[in-house]
Amino acid sequence: MSKGILTVISGFSGAGKGTLMKRLTRDYDNYALSVSMTTRPPREGEREGIEYFFVDTDIFQKRIQQGQMLEYACYCGNYYGTPREYVQEQLENGRDVILEIEIQGALQIKKLVPDCLLLFVTPPSAGELRRRLEGRGTENHEIIAKRLARAVEESEGIEAYDYIVINDNLEECVRQIHSMVQNAHHTPARQEALIKEIRGELNGFSKGAE
Amino acid sequence: MSKGILTVISGFSGAGKGTLMKRLTRDYDNYALSVSMTTRPPREGEREGIEYFFVDTDIFQKRIQQGQMLEYACYCGNYYGTPREYVQEQLENGRDVILEIEIQGALQIKKLVPDCLLLFVTPPSAGELRRRLEGRGTENHEIIAKRLARAVEESEGIEAYDYIVINDNLEECVRQIHSMVQNAHHTPARQEALIKEIRGELNGFSKGAE
Repeated sequence: MSKGILTVISGFSGAGKGTLMKRLTRDYDNYALSVSMTTRPPREGEREGIEYFFVDTDIFQKRIQQGQMLEYACYCGNYYGTPREYVQEQLENGRDVILEIEIQGALQIKKLVPDCLLLFVTPPSAGELRRRLEGRGTENHEIIAKRLARAVEESEGIEAYDYIVINDNLEECVRQIHSMVQNAHHTPARQEALIKEIRGELNGFSKGAE
Repeated sequence: MSKGILTVISGFSGAGKGTLMKRLTRDYDNYALSVSMTTRPPREGEREGIEYFFVDTDIFQKRIQQGQMLEYACYCGNYYGTPREYVQEQLENGRDVILEIEIQGALQIKKLVPDCLLLFVTPPSAGELRRRLEGRGTENHEIIAKRLARAVEESEGIEAYDYIVINDNLEECVRQIHSMVQNAHHTPARQEALIKEIRGELNGFSKGAE
């Protein structure tokens, strides 16, 4: 069994990342979603190991020091991050792991897992992005300004991604992401076993033919 | 209209490259096949600009000196190569150009066109490759040895390719190659116009919101 692909999905708010991930895991059976770890207390209905792994700050910081986090960030006094062990387990079991994460985290992961796949999801046009930022026109100035600042932030570093995924048609977009992940299994580094087998066969055959 | 992708297909003899290329151009309308140039005289039925561009040695060598060949090689006293102009014209017209070419030529092209896509086609296993090399068992030792030497040569440099394509099921394989080419249109470098448009929109929007 070959190792899974780690795929990081980032993109503009409202680009439909959440829906895309749900559809991927529904339509295909090779995917596992990563579960984040956080020091924020569980909200009602949140289950340990499903929505998050809940730990205290001491444990989280120890994990960071031991290099056990693939990426992490601190928001509003709480840590959020991706535990390495869970992701690695899934990858070694041949599952393609998908993570939804913003750009800073994505770049942290690329450093630790160079053969991960970075996908950036965007609405089909700047106009469409603007409409989504403006919302229904009922939001106040502050909310729109906040969304805008976030979008600018989100668009920085976009060149570091492997692919820009344009979410115009949902079905097509899901198929496209799936094909990107499946194709990533076909790089020479991922097909090392087959290449080795073929070279071995050619060598053995050549000796037999002498 | 966005520029086409230049795709180079190499691989073991008998891996089905020719059939794959025929099916790609039959099943999808975005592809153009490149036409090689040669100094060998036309055989009966070969048409100028269809099977080959036929030129004399002087012209071919001038083309090389002027940097007008994407790659070339000399076999049995005749030059064979890929004229740059024809390929560029097709790419600029938005056509995805496919070239079937051995590994040395593929690496020459990668240097000149760094964003080209290199695909290496292989039978699904070493055993299958061996069966194809042995043929029906009626060939003499010399023919098998020649094929073997060629396969060893063909397998060198395989790590420089973008993808290893395993030709097990023809239909699947054609779809896979097509998705590899289509996905190559979605790298950030290829989506520069959209990225620029979005950044422009975010800037304009931010000024409007001030």
